[in-house]
Amino acid sequence: MRYHLVRPGIETSAESVAFLSTDELLCQCLGLHPLDRIEVADGSGSVLAVLNGVTSGLVPPGSVGLSETAFERLALEEGVEVSMRPAGPPASVTAIRHKIAGRPFAGGDLRVLVDDIVSGRHSKVELTALVVASAIHGLSDDEVTELVRAMVARGRRMRWPGPIVADKHCIGGVPGNRTTPIVVAIAVAAGLTIPKTSSRAVTSAAGTADAMETLMNVSLSVERMEAVVRRAGGCLVWGGAMDLAPADDAIIRVEHPLHIDCEGLMLASILAKKIAAGATHVVIDIPVGPGSKVESSERAAALRERFRALGARLDLELSIQLTDGSSPIGHGVGPAIEARDVLAVLDGDALAPRDLREKSIAVAGSLLELVGAAAAGQGALEARSLLDSGAARERFELIRDLQGRSEPPRPGPAVYYWCAPVDGRVVAISNESIARAARLAGAPRDPAAGVDVHTRVGDRVTQGQPLLRVHARNTTMGEYARRYLETEARPMRVEPS
Amino acid sequence: MRYHLVRPGIETSAESVAFLSTDELLCQCLGLHPLDRIEVADGSGSVLAVLNGVTSGLVPPGSVGLSETAFERLALEEGVEVSMRPAGPPASVTAIRHKIAGRPFAGGDLRVLVDDIVSGRHSKVELTALVVASAIHGLSDDEVTELVRAMVARGRRMRWPGPIVADKHCIGGVPGNRTTPIVVAIAVAAGLTIPKTSSRAVTSAAGTADAMETLMNVSLSVERMEAVVRRAGGCLVWGGAMDLAPADDAIIRVEHPLHIDCEGLMLASILAKKIAAGATHVVIDIPVGPGSKVESSERAAALRERFRALGARLDLELSIQLTDGSSPIGHGVGPAIEARDVLAVLDGDALAPRDLREKSIAVAGSLLELVGAAAAGQGALEARSLLDSGAARERFELIRDLQGRSEPPRPGPAVYYWCAPVDGRVVAISNESIARAARLAGAPRDPAAGVDVHTRVGDRVTQGQPLLRVHARNTTMGEYARRYLETEARPMRVEPS
Repeated sequence: MRYHLVRPGIETSAESVAFLSTDELLCQCLGLHPLDRIEVADGSGSVLAVLNGVTSGLVPPGSVGLSETAFERLALEEGVEVSMRPAGPPASVTAIRHKIAGRPFAGGDLRVLVDDIVSGRHSKVELTALVVASAIHGLSDDEVTELVRAMVARGRRMRWPGPIVADKHCIGGVPGNRTTPIVVAIAVAAGLTIPKTSSRAVTSAAGTADAMETLMNVSLSVERMEAVVRRAGGCLVWGGAMDLAPADDAIIRVEHPLHIDCEGLMLASILAKKIAAGATHVVIDIPVGPGSKVESSERAAALRERFRALGARLDLELSIQLTDGSSPIGHGVGPAIEARDVLAVLDGDALAPRDLREKSIAVAGSLLELVGAAAAGQGALEARSLLDSGAARERFELIRDLQGRSEPPRPGPAVYYWCAPVDGRVVAISNESIARAARLAGAPRDPAAGVDVHTRVGDRVTQGQPLLRVHARNTTMGEYARRYLETEARPMRVEPS
Repeated sequence: MRYHLVRPGIETSAESVAFLSTDELLCQCLGLHPLDRIEVADGSGSVLAVLNGVTSGLVPPGSVGLSETAFERLALEEGVEVSMRPAGPPASVTAIRHKIAGRPFAGGDLRVLVDDIVSGRHSKVELTALVVASAIHGLSDDEVTELVRAMVARGRRMRWPGPIVADKHCIGGVPGNRTTPIVVAIAVAAGLTIPKTSSRAVTSAAGTADAMETLMNVSLSVERMEAVVRRAGGCLVWGGAMDLAPADDAIIRVEHPLHIDCEGLMLASILAKKIAAGATHVVIDIPVGPGSKVESSERAAALRERFRALGARLDLELSIQLTDGSSPIGHGVGPAIEARDVLAVLDGDALAPRDLREKSIAVAGSLLELVGAAAAGQGALEARSLLDSGAARERFELIRDLQGRSEPPRPGPAVYYWCAPVDGRVVAISNESIARAARLAGAPRDPAAGVDVHTRVGDRVTQGQPLLRVHARNTTMGEYARRYLETEARPMRVEPS
């Protein structure tokens, strides 16, 4: 039976969905049942999708609709004829079931698994089962190593001239922690090659790519990225479209709503992306503290050991830094606000956020030591001097020019202030509340939206003193954030004095 | 901000989804992000839904669409004004996260969990996490007992006159195993009260409700069901709309695609439904064998012990029968085909399937002994006599008349025969292949569709002899089943002689 392909324009994210009219399902396609897996194909290609019924005229009888990503995967025009047939689950579901039962993944399983993930063949149910079973049973170093190899093999692998290629990665969870642009600027000023790819925010107020996009074009082709790195020594681009170990988006979309991290999947994803990007020497920043991804120093130490063991197996030189992750860094969160803080640090502005400056210097220093560009214990000194001399700023501006400079928008109007409830001392600032308030104000899609954080843990404050400033396009846009901060959130804890 | 409610007519099963135009998300609703949980509300009620973007004109700017079940939950007209706001995950997600981490559920957790499930507040990701974590860590007898209590408390609880209310349940997995109508007929002929509610097929070729619907109206109100039971002593109705422990549909929709069963969730669901239906004495049929849900006799014995322990805690008298589940029962599968077999057994037809007759007598006999209507060891004798005397048939026809008799459709035309590949002996018949072939032919939605099984394990067959007959509306409808049986399935194993 042949069907006309239609595009109802429904975005279903990680899951490929096929839509068929309920009438068609009841009258003509009795052998296809809602939620069955079906294959939609023409001569040249096919997609696996989960079947949903549609009762409106959206998908007329005789037609089959595909969700946006499935439609793009099939790469056909609307109206062409396709065939449709019942299909089984993707091959890797057997391995997922075995993992649920406690059996480890084998190397062959993981190659099939990664192929199914990258091809978007899993339903949300199957992806969630993979993540939860991997989180509960864990992934051994063997499994993570094989998973990294499968991920690297399935995507693009970049090559750079010279034996040493530097990189950095932060496992995330701390709003405003925008050290990457500063570290890259210092590293290239020191003569390193650092072809940095970054991600956009999934659940935070801004990813490095979102913040840098307010200052320059970050959506470069691989060829253009290579040209920038040849000229400047480094770059600051969005890695999402570069096909580097492209399996983790789907996994993150499942992990996030559950607020769980599967350590093995996270390790594999980080290491695979670094290897695929051609890195040989990488500083890993692990923020530690209540409210960050890694809450205890025991867990942080164990994670450091795992990184070390995996780095050795995968021939990657790693320097793992445990840093303070208990509260936001910089003077605010949101793309333009974080870009402002980065520029202030690079400018040597006396009012630049000290924590962002010092952390960037420390991370850059570790990187200089790791690649042998500074003697042990001298990295931070060297990094500070490259920053203070203006050399880092100069390289940063070169990268902006080469990628395509733009001027950042001013933060949106201040629509709401969150004020100290009592006289006292700030004893905690919540990473989660600050990030969520900024997202509710429109970040990262509205680059001018975000939250300014005027206070640090330890500061004395007086009742009614503004501690947070919410920026949004207008007061209506700021309404969600205001309501959240006033009723649900606990953005800061102030101990009465 | 106020939005007009629209109904795009999209069925998303267990998950409540809200649709917003992508333009609206990008321009007006910057604080709402795709895949966020949002609350859509008017003054009187609200639903939690997962936000999806729509690029077509399906949901115009200024409007919000809801998936079918979410729309029905909100119970408003299209076009009315509703409000929309970002919301957190449902309260029970914290308990699900703790369960992933290995912490048992507490009673209070489970009440909130059941409320969230029944109200459809979970996303598929959250439901899957619940099922996978419960499958891996298991649910203790304490957890199952509390879960049963929470499920019973959340739905309707039926009351019947007299101290003894009989029931039966089969944990399923064996196609054609349609003993329920025969057991009910024998039980009421013996004077028992047996207000039987049954389910429709989720993944099989027919549920008892699907098969009985070809013979009588099974969609009764609770009041009408009570009237039937008062007159006839029993009934055969669809329990789906009766609000009895209404939490398991959502769970099954997640378990099935993974082919996993969480034992604790299954036990809780069965026991809660029985208690909610008012049963005091229940026979549980556990089919055992390769290809059924319980493959080994060790697992079956362990399951029997768990049922016994839980029955004692919940004050439910149980008789647990381990039966042969290695191959289909009766002469075929599909609603009308199974109804035909049931009538043949009740009629005492000499060509009626012996296995269905003998199993029904055994189960009915256990029930008679359990309630004290027959002495130990005499139940089967008593049951056989009630069947052979025509008394059971007479009560069955009374139930049909009271519920509203209909005449079953003839099985659809034979569209395909699967024939013996060699001369030899049938050594295995696959439950899964037979069920899937019948579904691909259109069962259960087409009640006349299904598969006749002409052979039993142990039969000698000759090459080319038809062993399966596929019934479908027409040859086009039978095409999926034919292709499946010819290329993918292994419906029978014939050992060459």
